[in-house]
Amino acid sequence: MDKRAPDNRSIGVFDSGMGGLTAVRRLHALMPKENIIYFGDTSRVPYGTRGRDTIVKYARQDVAFLRQFDLKAIVIACNTVSSVALDLLTEENNIPIIGTVEPACRRAMTMTQNGRVGVIGTAATMRSGAYEKYLHKKDGTLRLYTQACPLFVPLVENGRVHRGDIVIETVAAEYLAPLKEAGVDTLILGCTHYPLLEEVISDYMGPDVTLIDSGAEAANLASTQFNPNDGPGGTRYYVSDDPAGFDRLAGLFLQEDVETNAGLVDISRF
Amino acid sequence: MDKRAPDNRSIGVFDSGMGGLTAVRRLHALMPKENIIYFGDTSRVPYGTRGRDTIVKYARQDVAFLRQFDLKAIVIACNTVSSVALDLLTEENNIPIIGTVEPACRRAMTMTQNGRVGVIGTAATMRSGAYEKYLHKKDGTLRLYTQACPLFVPLVENGRVHRGDIVIETVAAEYLAPLKEAGVDTLILGCTHYPLLEEVISDYMGPDVTLIDSGAEAANLASTQFNPNDGPGGTRYYVSDDPAGFDRLAGLFLQEDVETNAGLVDISRF
Repeated sequence: MDKRAPDNRSIGVFDSGMGGLTAVRRLHALMPKENIIYFGDTSRVPYGTRGRDTIVKYARQDVAFLRQFDLKAIVIACNTVSSVALDLLTEENNIPIIGTVEPACRRAMTMTQNGRVGVIGTAATMRSGAYEKYLHKKDGTLRLYTQACPLFVPLVENGRVHRGDIVIETVAAEYLAPLKEAGVDTLILGCTHYPLLEEVISDYMGPDVTLIDSGAEAANLASTQFNPNDGPGGTRYYVSDDPAGFDRLAGLFLQEDVETNAGLVDISRF
Repeated sequence: MDKRAPDNRSIGVFDSGMGGLTAVRRLHALMPKENIIYFGDTSRVPYGTRGRDTIVKYARQDVAFLRQFDLKAIVIACNTVSSVALDLLTEENNIPIIGTVEPACRRAMTMTQNGRVGVIGTAATMRSGAYEKYLHKKDGTLRLYTQACPLFVPLVENGRVHRGDIVIETVAAEYLAPLKEAGVDTLILGCTHYPLLEEVISDYMGPDVTLIDSGAEAANLASTQFNPNDGPGGTRYYVSDDPAGFDRLAGLFLQEDVETNAGLVDISRF
Protein backbone atom coordinates (compact mmCIF):
# COMPACT_ATOMS: atom_id res chain seq x y z
CA MET A 1 0.00 0.00 0.00
CA ASP A 2 1.26 3.46 -0.92
CA LYS A 3 2.31 5.25 2.20
CA ARG A 4 -0.09 8.10 1.59
CA ALA A 5 -2.97 6.08 0.19
CA PRO A 6 -6.23 7.32 1.74
CA ASP A 7 -7.15 5.99 5.16
CA ASN A 8 -10.72 7.02 5.79
CA ARG A 9 -10.91 5.80 9.35
CA SER A 10 -11.55 8.52 11.93
CA ILE A 11 -9.20 10.25 14.33
CA GLY A 12 -10.41 10.09 17.93
CA VAL A 13 -9.69 13.13 20.08
CA PHE A 14 -10.51 13.49 23.76
CA ASP A 15 -10.11 15.88 26.62
CA SER A 16 -11.51 16.33 30.11
CA GLY A 17 -13.82 18.98 28.69
CA MET A 18 -13.61 21.91 26.30
CA GLY A 19 -9.88 22.64 26.15
CA GLY A 20 -9.13 19.89 23.63
CA LEU A 21 -11.12 21.85 21.07
CA THR A 22 -8.03 24.04 20.61
CA ALA A 23 -6.33 20.91 19.21
CA VAL A 24 -9.36 20.14 17.04
CA ARG A 25 -9.11 23.65 15.68
CA ARG A 26 -5.56 22.95 14.53
CA LEU A 27 -6.56 19.56 13.09
CA HIS A 28 -9.28 21.30 11.10
CA ALA A 29 -6.70 23.73 9.71
CA LEU A 30 -4.08 21.08 8.90
CA MET A 31 -6.32 18.27 7.75
CA PRO A 32 -9.72 19.61 6.72
CA LYS A 33 -10.67 16.32 5.10
CA GLU A 34 -10.33 14.14 8.20
CA ASN A 35 -13.18 12.53 10.07
CA ILE A 36 -12.82 13.47 13.71
CA ILE A 37 -14.65 12.04 16.72
CA TYR A 38 -14.30 14.35 19.72
CA PHE A 39 -15.17 13.34 23.26
CA GLY A 40 -15.20 15.90 26.09
CA ASP A 41 -15.78 14.46 29.57
CA THR A 42 -17.82 17.45 30.66
CA SER A 43 -19.57 15.58 33.50
CA ARG A 44 -16.23 15.00 35.29
CA VAL A 45 -14.10 17.95 34.22
CA PRO A 46 -11.62 19.13 35.50
CA TYR A 47 -9.06 16.30 35.60
CA GLY A 48 -6.08 18.44 36.59
CA THR A 49 -7.09 18.75 40.23
CA ARG A 50 -7.63 15.02 40.76
CA GLY A 51 -5.43 12.19 41.96
CA ARG A 52 -3.52 9.84 39.67
CA ASP A 53 -5.79 6.81 40.05
CA THR A 54 -8.92 8.79 39.22
CA ILE A 55 -7.27 10.31 36.14
CA VAL A 56 -6.17 6.87 34.93
CA LYS A 57 -9.65 5.45 35.42
CA TYR A 58 -11.30 8.32 33.56
CA ALA A 59 -8.75 8.20 30.72
CA ARG A 60 -9.34 4.46 30.21
CA GLN A 61 -13.08 5.06 29.98
CA ASP A 62 -12.60 7.91 27.50
CA VAL A 63 -10.46 5.67 25.28
CA ALA A 64 -12.93 2.78 25.61
CA PHE A 65 -15.72 5.05 24.41
CA LEU A 66 -13.70 6.26 21.39
CA ARG A 67 -12.64 2.74 20.47
CA GLN A 68 -16.22 1.91 19.60
CA PHE A 69 -15.52 3.82 16.38
CA ASP A 70 -13.25 2.66 13.57
CA LEU A 71 -10.16 4.75 14.34
CA LYS A 72 -6.71 5.13 12.83
CA ALA A 73 -5.34 7.03 15.83
CA ILE A 74 -6.24 8.76 19.08
CA VAL A 75 -5.06 12.24 20.04
CA ILE A 76 -5.06 12.94 23.76
CA ALA A 77 -5.83 16.66 23.67
CA CYS A 78 -5.33 16.91 27.43
CA ASN A 79 -1.99 17.45 29.08
CA THR A 80 -3.15 15.96 32.36
CA VAL A 81 -3.97 12.62 30.72
CA SER A 82 -0.90 12.79 28.46
CA SER A 83 1.32 13.36 31.47
CA VAL A 84 -0.20 10.74 33.73
CA ALA A 85 -1.48 7.94 31.49
CA LEU A 86 -0.01 8.00 27.96
CA ASP A 87 2.37 5.05 28.47
CA LEU A 88 -0.31 2.95 30.05
CA LEU A 89 -2.92 3.75 27.37
CA THR A 90 -0.37 3.01 24.63
CA GLU A 91 0.38 -0.37 26.22
CA GLU A 92 -3.28 -1.26 26.48
CA ASN A 93 -4.33 -0.26 22.95
CA ASN A 94 -3.13 -1.47 19.58
CA ILE A 95 -3.56 1.82 17.73
CA PRO A 96 -1.31 4.89 17.70
CA ILE A 97 -1.99 7.26 20.59
CA ILE A 98 -0.53 10.75 20.41
CA GLY A 99 -0.13 12.85 23.55
CA THR A 100 0.86 16.46 24.03
CA VAL A 101 4.08 16.15 26.02
CA GLU A 102 6.45 14.83 23.38
CA PRO A 103 5.46 17.17 20.52
CA ALA A 104 5.42 20.21 22.82
CA CYS A 105 8.88 19.32 24.14
CA ARG A 106 10.26 18.73 20.65
CA ARG A 107 9.09 22.13 19.51
CA ALA A 108 10.52 23.77 22.64
CA MET A 109 13.90 22.15 21.98
CA THR A 110 14.01 23.60 18.47
CA MET A 111 12.92 27.06 19.64
CA THR A 112 14.99 27.72 22.75
CA GLN A 113 18.15 29.74 22.29
CA ASN A 114 19.29 29.94 25.90
CA GLY A 115 18.30 26.44 26.98
CA ARG A 116 15.85 27.67 29.58
CA VAL A 117 12.36 26.29 29.05
CA GLY A 118 9.28 26.88 31.18
CA VAL A 119 6.22 24.65 31.44
CA ILE A 120 2.89 25.62 32.95
CA GLY A 121 -0.02 23.25 33.49
CA THR A 122 -2.48 21.76 35.94
CA ALA A 123 -1.49 20.50 39.37
CA ALA A 124 -1.64 16.87 38.19
CA THR A 125 0.49 17.56 35.10
CA MET A 126 3.18 19.25 37.15
CA ARG A 127 3.09 16.56 39.84
CA SER A 128 3.58 13.83 37.22
CA GLY A 129 7.02 15.13 36.23
CA ALA A 130 6.31 14.03 32.64
CA TYR A 131 7.81 17.12 31.01
CA GLU A 132 11.00 16.89 33.07
CA LYS A 133 11.39 13.22 32.26
CA TYR A 134 11.01 13.71 28.53
CA LEU A 135 13.19 16.80 28.22
CA HIS A 136 16.01 15.55 30.42
CA LYS A 137 16.12 12.27 28.55
CA LYS A 138 16.45 14.11 25.24
CA ASP A 139 18.80 16.90 26.26
CA GLY A 140 20.52 16.88 29.63
CA THR A 141 21.75 20.47 29.20
CA LEU A 142 18.27 22.03 29.12
CA ARG A 143 17.05 23.75 32.25
CA LEU A 144 13.35 23.31 32.93
CA TYR A 145 11.21 25.55 35.11
CA THR A 146 7.72 24.33 35.99
CA GLN A 147 4.70 26.02 37.50
CA ALA A 148 1.22 24.71 38.30
CA CYS A 149 -1.52 27.23 37.43
CA PRO A 150 -4.66 25.76 39.03
CA LEU A 151 -6.83 28.86 38.58
CA PHE A 152 -6.25 29.23 34.84
CA VAL A 153 -8.84 26.61 33.82
CA PRO A 154 -11.77 28.03 35.83
CA LEU A 155 -10.80 31.57 34.83
CA VAL A 156 -10.77 30.65 31.14
CA GLU A 157 -14.06 28.79 31.44
CA ASN A 158 -15.55 31.92 32.98
CA GLY A 159 -14.31 34.05 30.10
CA ARG A 160 -11.62 35.88 32.09
CA VAL A 161 -9.14 35.84 29.22
CA HIS A 162 -8.89 39.49 28.25
CA ARG A 163 -6.02 41.90 28.46
CA GLY A 164 -6.86 44.56 31.03
CA ASP A 165 -8.85 42.22 33.32
CA ILE A 166 -7.14 42.71 36.66
CA VAL A 167 -8.25 39.27 37.86
CA ILE A 168 -6.53 37.22 35.15
CA GLU A 169 -3.58 39.63 34.98
CA THR A 170 -2.96 39.38 38.72
CA VAL A 171 -3.19 35.60 38.76
CA ALA A 172 -1.02 35.29 35.65
CA ALA A 173 1.65 37.54 37.11
CA GLU A 174 1.77 35.49 40.32
CA TYR A 175 2.13 32.19 38.47
CA LEU A 176 4.56 33.43 35.83
CA ALA A 177 6.88 35.59 37.96
CA PRO A 178 9.29 32.74 38.84
CA LEU A 179 9.55 31.71 35.17
CA LYS A 180 10.20 35.26 34.03
CA GLU A 181 12.79 35.67 36.78
CA ALA A 182 14.48 32.45 35.65
CA GLY A 183 14.87 33.95 32.18
CA VAL A 184 13.06 31.29 30.17
CA ASP A 185 12.94 32.14 26.46
CA THR A 186 10.42 29.40 25.64
CA LEU A 187 7.25 28.60 27.55
CA ILE A 188 5.18 25.48 26.97
CA LEU A 189 1.45 26.06 27.50
CA GLY A 190 0.99 22.62 29.03
CA CYS A 191 -2.81 22.65 29.11
CA THR A 192 -5.16 22.93 26.16
CA HIS A 193 -7.12 25.71 27.86
CA TYR A 194 -4.14 28.04 27.94
CA PRO A 195 -4.01 29.14 24.28
CA LEU A 196 -7.00 31.33 25.17
CA LEU A 197 -4.64 33.17 27.54
CA GLU A 198 -1.92 33.65 24.94
CA GLU A 199 -2.31 37.42 24.87
CA VAL A 200 -2.25 37.83 28.64
CA ILE A 201 0.68 35.45 29.07
CA SER A 202 2.64 37.01 26.24
CA ASP A 203 2.06 40.51 27.61
CA TYR A 204 3.56 39.44 30.91
CA MET A 205 6.43 37.33 29.62
CA GLY A 206 7.42 39.79 26.92
CA PRO A 207 7.80 39.53 23.14
CA ASP A 208 11.06 37.56 23.29
CA VAL A 209 9.52 34.53 24.95
CA THR A 210 8.13 31.94 22.52
CA LEU A 211 4.88 30.31 23.60
CA ILE A 212 4.34 26.68 22.60
CA ASP A 213 0.72 25.54 22.13
CA SER A 214 0.87 21.89 23.22
CA GLY A 215 -2.51 20.92 21.76
CA ALA A 216 -1.59 22.40 18.39
CA GLU A 217 1.77 20.56 18.49
CA ALA A 218 -0.07 17.29 19.12
CA ALA A 219 -2.22 18.05 16.09
CA ASN A 220 0.90 18.85 14.04
CA LEU A 221 2.46 15.53 15.01
CA ALA A 222 -0.76 13.67 14.27
CA SER A 223 -0.86 15.12 10.77
CA THR A 224 2.45 13.41 9.94
CA GLN A 225 1.69 10.05 11.51
CA PHE A 226 -0.88 8.40 9.32
CA ASN A 227 -2.35 8.38 5.87
CA PRO A 228 -4.88 11.14 5.28
CA ASN A 229 -8.54 10.83 4.56
CA ASP A 230 -9.57 11.84 1.03
CA GLY A 231 -12.60 13.70 2.28
CA PRO A 232 -15.01 15.28 2.64
CA GLY A 233 -14.40 14.88 6.38
CA GLY A 234 -16.29 16.23 9.36
CA THR A 235 -16.29 16.28 13.13
CA ARG A 236 -18.73 14.57 15.45
CA TYR A 237 -18.82 15.78 19.06
CA TYR A 238 -19.75 13.77 22.16
CA VAL A 239 -19.92 14.92 25.76
CA SER A 240 -20.87 13.36 29.09
CA ASP A 241 -22.89 16.33 30.43
CA ASP A 242 -25.60 18.55 28.96
CA PRO A 243 -24.74 19.08 25.26
CA ALA A 244 -26.35 22.55 25.28
CA GLY A 245 -23.77 23.80 27.78
CA PHE A 246 -20.96 22.45 25.60
CA ASP A 247 -22.43 24.05 22.51
CA ARG A 248 -22.58 27.47 24.14
CA LEU A 249 -18.82 27.53 24.87
CA ALA A 250 -17.43 25.53 21.94
CA GLY A 251 -17.09 28.53 19.63
CA LEU A 252 -14.76 30.24 22.10
CA PHE A 253 -12.29 27.34 21.84
CA LEU A 254 -12.72 26.56 18.14
CA GLN A 255 -12.62 30.25 17.20
CA GLU A 256 -15.45 29.74 14.78
CA ASP A 257 -19.23 29.79 14.82
CA VAL A 258 -20.28 26.18 15.05
CA GLU A 259 -23.29 24.11 16.03
CA THR A 260 -21.66 21.08 17.61
CA ASN A 261 -24.89 19.04 17.87
CA ALA A 262 -23.00 17.04 20.47
CA GLY A 263 -24.22 13.60 21.47
CA LEU A 264 -24.65 12.64 25.13
CA VAL A 265 -22.59 9.72 26.48
CA ASP A 266 -22.95 7.93 29.84
CA ILE A 267 -19.18 7.61 30.26
CA SER A 268 -19.48 5.70 33.55
CA ARG A 269 -20.67 2.68 31.55
CA PHE A 270 -17.32 2.30 29.77
CA MET B 1 -40.56 5.69 73.09
CA ASP B 2 -39.71 8.98 74.79
CA LYS B 3 -39.35 11.66 72.13
CA ARG B 4 -35.76 12.39 73.11
CA ALA B 5 -34.67 8.84 73.93
CA PRO B 6 -31.25 8.18 72.44
CA ASP B 7 -31.11 7.23 68.76
CA ASN B 8 -27.61 6.05 68.09
CA ARG B 9 -27.94 5.66 64.36
CA SER B 10 -25.68 7.91 62.31
CA ILE B 11 -26.38 11.11 60.43
CA GLY B 12 -25.28 10.93 56.80
CA VAL B 13 -23.94 14.14 55.30
CA PHE B 14 -22.84 14.63 51.72
CA ASP B 15 -21.55 17.29 49.38
CA SER B 16 -19.93 17.45 45.97
CA GLY B 17 -16.60 17.88 47.71
CA MET B 18 -15.19 19.85 50.62
CA GLY B 19 -17.78 22.61 51.12
CA GLY B 20 -20.13 20.43 53.13
CA LEU B 21 -17.56 20.31 55.89
CA THR B 22 -18.76 23.76 56.94
CA ALA B 23 -22.07 22.07 57.82
CA VAL B 24 -20.23 19.24 59.63
CA ARG B 25 -18.45 21.89 61.64
CA ARG B 26 -21.78 23.23 62.85
CA LEU B 27 -23.08 19.72 63.55
CA HIS B 28 -19.99 19.07 65.68
CA ALA B 29 -20.67 22.26 67.64
CA LEU B 30 -24.40 21.58 68.12
CA MET B 31 -24.35 17.81 68.57
CA PRO B 32 -20.88 16.67 69.62
CA LYS B 33 -22.18 13.22 70.54
CA GLU B 34 -23.56 12.30 67.11
CA ASN B 35 -22.09 9.71 64.78
CA ILE B 36 -21.63 11.35 61.41
CA ILE B 37 -20.82 9.71 58.08
CA TYR B 38 -19.53 12.30 55.60
CA PHE B 39 -19.21 11.66 51.89
CA GLY B 40 -17.50 14.18 49.60
CA ASP B 41 -17.68 13.36 45.89
CA THR B 42 -14.19 14.70 45.23
CA SER B 43 -13.71 12.76 41.99
CA ARG B 44 -16.64 14.60 40.36
CA VAL B 45 -16.66 17.98 42.08
CA PRO B 46 -17.88 20.59 41.18
CA TYR B 47 -21.59 19.93 40.74
CA GLY B 48 -22.66 23.56 40.37
CA THR B 49 -21.43 23.90 36.78
CA ARG B 50 -23.19 20.75 35.54
CA GLY B 51 -26.55 20.06 33.95
CA ARG B 52 -29.61 18.92 35.88
CA ASP B 53 -29.57 15.27 34.80
CA THR B 54 -25.93 14.82 35.79
CA ILE B 55 -26.54 16.41 39.18
CA VAL B 56 -29.56 14.13 39.79
CA LYS B 57 -27.56 11.05 38.85
CA TYR B 58 -24.65 11.97 41.10
CA ALA B 59 -26.96 12.85 44.01
CA ARG B 60 -28.72 9.48 43.76
CA GLN B 61 -25.38 7.69 43.88
CA ASP B 62 -24.25 9.74 46.88
CA VAL B 63 -27.42 8.82 48.76
CA ALA B 64 -27.12 5.15 47.73
CA PHE B 65 -23.61 5.06 49.17
CA LEU B 66 -24.70 6.63 52.46
CA ARG B 67 -27.69 4.32 52.78
CA GLN B 68 -25.37 1.40 53.27
CA PHE B 69 -24.99 2.71 56.81
CA ASP B 70 -27.67 2.62 59.49
CA LEU B 71 -28.85 6.23 59.32
CA LYS B 72 -31.50 8.27 61.09
CA ALA B 73 -31.29 11.14 58.59
CA ILE B 74 -29.36 12.58 55.69
CA VAL B 75 -28.20 16.18 55.48
CA ILE B 76 -27.55 17.45 51.96
CA ALA B 77 -24.72 19.87 52.70
CA CYS B 78 -24.73 21.08 49.08
CA ASN B 79 -27.00 23.80 47.79
CA THR B 80 -26.75 22.56 44.21
CA VAL B 81 -28.17 19.14 45.14
CA SER B 82 -30.66 20.66 47.58
CA SER B 83 -31.94 23.00 44.88
CA VAL B 84 -32.13 20.48 42.08
CA ALA B 85 -32.90 17.10 43.67
CA LEU B 86 -34.26 17.36 47.22
CA ASP B 87 -37.88 16.56 46.33
CA LEU B 88 -36.89 13.61 44.21
CA LEU B 89 -34.48 12.19 46.82
CA THR B 90 -37.14 12.62 49.52
CA GLU B 91 -39.66 10.71 47.41
CA GLU B 92 -37.22 7.88 46.75
CA ASN B 93 -35.99 7.38 50.32
CA ASN B 94 -37.88 6.51 53.47
CA ILE B 95 -35.70 8.48 55.88
CA PRO B 96 -35.69 12.21 56.62
CA ILE B 97 -33.57 14.21 54.18
CA ILE B 98 -32.69 17.77 55.12
CA GLY B 99 -31.56 20.24 52.47
CA THR B 100 -30.19 23.75 52.74
CA VAL B 101 -32.82 25.81 50.92
CA GLU B 102 -35.68 25.67 53.42
CA PRO B 103 -33.67 26.36 56.59
CA ALA B 104 -31.70 29.17 54.89
CA CYS B 105 -34.92 30.79 53.67
CA ARG B 106 -36.60 30.46 57.05
CA ARG B 107 -33.70 32.22 58.74
CA ALA B 108 -33.67 34.92 56.07
CA MET B 109 -37.40 35.56 56.62
CA THR B 110 -36.86 36.09 60.35
CA MET B 111 -33.86 38.36 59.81
CA THR B 112 -34.92 40.71 57.02
CA GLN B 113 -36.33 44.08 58.04
CA ASN B 114 -36.88 45.59 54.62
CA GLY B 115 -38.09 42.45 52.84
CA ARG B 116 -35.23 42.46 50.33
CA VAL B 117 -33.28 39.23 50.40
CA GLY B 118 -30.32 38.26 48.22
CA VAL B 119 -29.17 34.75 47.35
CA ILE B 120 -25.83 33.81 45.84
CA GLY B 121 -24.86 30.33 44.68
CA THR B 122 -23.63 28.18 41.84
CA ALA B 123 -24.96 28.44 38.30
CA ALA B 124 -27.05 25.27 38.77
CA THR B 125 -28.55 26.48 42.06
CA MET B 126 -29.56 29.79 40.55
CA ARG B 127 -30.94 28.14 37.39
CA SER B 128 -33.12 25.81 39.48
CA GLY B 129 -35.17 28.66 40.92
CA ALA B 130 -35.45 26.71 44.18
CA TYR B 131 -34.93 29.72 46.45
CA GLU B 132 -37.49 31.82 44.58
CA LYS B 133 -40.04 29.02 44.72
CA TYR B 134 -39.68 28.48 48.44
CA LEU B 135 -39.62 32.13 49.47
CA HIS B 136 -42.47 33.24 47.24
CA LYS B 137 -44.63 30.39 48.48
CA LYS B 138 -44.02 31.40 52.09
CA ASP B 139 -44.18 35.16 51.76
CA GLY B 140 -45.36 36.80 48.55
CA THR B 141 -44.26 40.24 49.74
CA LEU B 142 -40.54 39.40 49.89
CA ARG B 143 -38.34 40.61 47.05
CA LEU B 144 -35.60 38.22 46.10
CA TYR B 145 -32.41 39.11 44.23
CA THR B 146 -30.29 36.25 42.93
CA GLN B 147 -26.76 36.07 41.57
CA ALA B 148 -24.69 33.13 40.33
CA CYS B 149 -21.06 33.31 41.47
CA PRO B 150 -19.30 30.59 39.44
CA LEU B 151 -15.75 31.65 40.33
CA PHE B 152 -16.23 31.58 44.10
CA VAL B 153 -15.78 27.80 44.45
CA PRO B 154 -12.45 27.56 42.56
CA LEU B 155 -11.19 30.72 44.26
CA VAL B 156 -12.01 29.32 47.71
CA GLU B 157 -10.43 25.95 46.86
CA ASN B 158 -7.28 27.82 45.85
CA GLY B 159 -7.20 29.67 49.14
CA ARG B 160 -8.14 33.09 47.69
CA VAL B 161 -10.33 33.96 50.67
CA HIS B 162 -8.45 36.77 52.34
CA ARG B 163 -9.30 40.42 52.76
CA GLY B 164 -6.89 42.49 50.66
CA ASP B 165 -6.53 39.92 47.86
CA ILE B 166 -7.41 41.94 44.77
CA VAL B 167 -8.49 38.81 42.89
CA ILE B 168 -11.24 37.73 45.27
CA GLU B 169 -12.19 41.33 46.08
CA THR B 170 -12.62 42.21 42.39
CA VAL B 171 -14.67 39.11 41.63
CA ALA B 172 -16.78 39.57 44.78
CA ALA B 173 -17.50 43.20 43.92
CA GLU B 174 -18.61 42.26 40.40
CA TYR B 175 -20.98 39.56 41.62
CA LEU B 176 -22.35 41.47 44.61
CA ALA B 177 -22.80 44.94 43.08
CA PRO B 178 -26.37 44.32 41.82
CA LEU B 179 -27.41 42.96 45.23
CA LYS B 180 -25.91 45.90 47.07
CA GLU B 181 -27.57 48.28 44.65
CA ALA B 182 -30.91 46.54 45.22
CA GLY B 183 -30.57 47.30 48.92
CA VAL B 184 -30.82 43.76 50.28
CA ASP B 185 -30.46 43.65 54.07
CA THR B 186 -30.10 39.86 54.20
CA LEU B 187 -27.90 37.71 51.97
CA ILE B 188 -28.12 33.92 51.83
CA LEU B 189 -24.76 32.26 51.18
CA GLY B 190 -26.34 29.58 49.02
CA CYS B 191 -23.25 27.38 48.68
CA THR B 192 -21.39 25.65 51.48
CA HIS B 193 -18.06 27.00 50.21
CA TYR B 194 -19.07 30.59 50.76
CA PRO B 195 -18.75 30.83 54.55
CA LEU B 196 -15.00 30.95 53.91
CA LEU B 197 -15.63 34.23 52.09
CA GLU B 198 -17.70 35.72 54.91
CA GLU B 199 -15.16 38.44 55.66
CA VAL B 200 -14.72 39.51 52.03
CA ILE B 201 -18.47 39.46 51.35
CA SER B 202 -19.28 41.31 54.56
CA ASP B 203 -16.64 43.97 53.82
CA TYR B 204 -18.28 44.63 50.48
CA MET B 205 -21.92 44.45 51.53
CA GLY B 206 -21.42 46.44 54.72
CA PRO B 207 -22.13 45.76 58.39
CA ASP B 208 -25.90 46.18 58.09
CA VAL B 209 -26.36 43.20 55.79
CA THR B 210 -26.95 39.90 57.59
CA LEU B 211 -25.23 36.91 56.01
CA ILE B 212 -27.00 33.53 56.27
CA ASP B 213 -24.82 30.42 56.29
CA SER B 214 -27.02 27.85 54.54
CA GLY B 215 -24.97 24.81 55.58
CA ALA B 216 -25.06 25.88 59.22
CA GLU B 217 -28.82 26.45 58.98
CA ALA B 218 -29.24 22.92 57.63
CA ALA B 219 -27.26 21.67 60.62
CA ASN B 220 -29.42 23.76 62.96
CA LEU B 221 -32.57 22.26 61.50
CA ALA B 222 -31.14 18.75 61.66
CA SER B 223 -30.40 19.18 65.36
CA THR B 224 -34.12 19.65 66.07
CA GLN B 225 -35.42 16.84 63.85
CA PHE B 226 -34.47 13.62 65.53
CA ASN B 227 -33.50 12.11 68.83
CA PRO B 228 -29.87 12.64 69.75
CA ASN B 229 -27.17 10.08 70.18
CA ASP B 230 -25.95 9.61 73.76
CA GLY B 231 -22.31 9.52 72.71
CA PRO B 232 -19.42 9.40 72.47
CA GLY B 233 -19.95 10.14 68.75
CA GLY B 234 -17.45 10.65 65.98
CA THR B 235 -17.19 11.40 62.29
CA ARG B 236 -16.10 9.05 59.53
CA TYR B 237 -15.10 10.61 56.22
CA TYR B 238 -15.36 9.07 52.76
CA VAL B 239 -14.32 10.55 49.43
CA SER B 240 -14.26 9.40 45.80
CA ASP B 241 -10.80 10.77 44.93
CA ASP B 242 -7.41 10.64 46.61
CA PRO B 243 -8.01 10.85 50.40
CA ALA B 244 -4.67 12.62 50.92
CA GLY B 245 -5.83 15.61 48.87
CA PHE B 246 -9.01 15.81 50.94
CA ASP B 247 -7.09 15.59 54.17
CA ARG B 248 -4.84 18.51 53.21
CA LEU B 249 -7.78 20.91 52.76
CA ALA B 250 -10.25 19.60 55.34
CA GLY B 251 -8.89 21.72 58.18
CA LEU B 252 -9.61 24.91 56.22
CA PHE B 253 -13.31 24.05 56.10
CA LEU B 254 -13.66 22.47 59.55
CA GLN B 255 -11.60 25.25 61.16
CA GLU B 256 -9.80 22.72 63.28
CA ASP B 257 -6.74 20.52 63.00
CA VAL B 258 -8.00 17.13 62.02
CA GLU B 259 -6.78 13.91 60.48
CA THR B 260 -9.76 12.80 58.48
CA ASN B 261 -8.38 9.33 57.62
CA ALA B 262 -10.91 9.39 54.81
CA GLY B 263 -11.91 6.15 53.12
CA LEU B 264 -11.91 5.84 49.32
CA VAL B 265 -15.22 5.03 47.56
CA ASP B 266 -15.79 4.06 43.94
CA ILE B 267 -18.97 6.12 43.69
CA SER B 268 -19.65 5.09 40.09
CA ARG B 269 -20.62 1.61 41.41
CA PHE B 270 -23.63 2.96 43.31
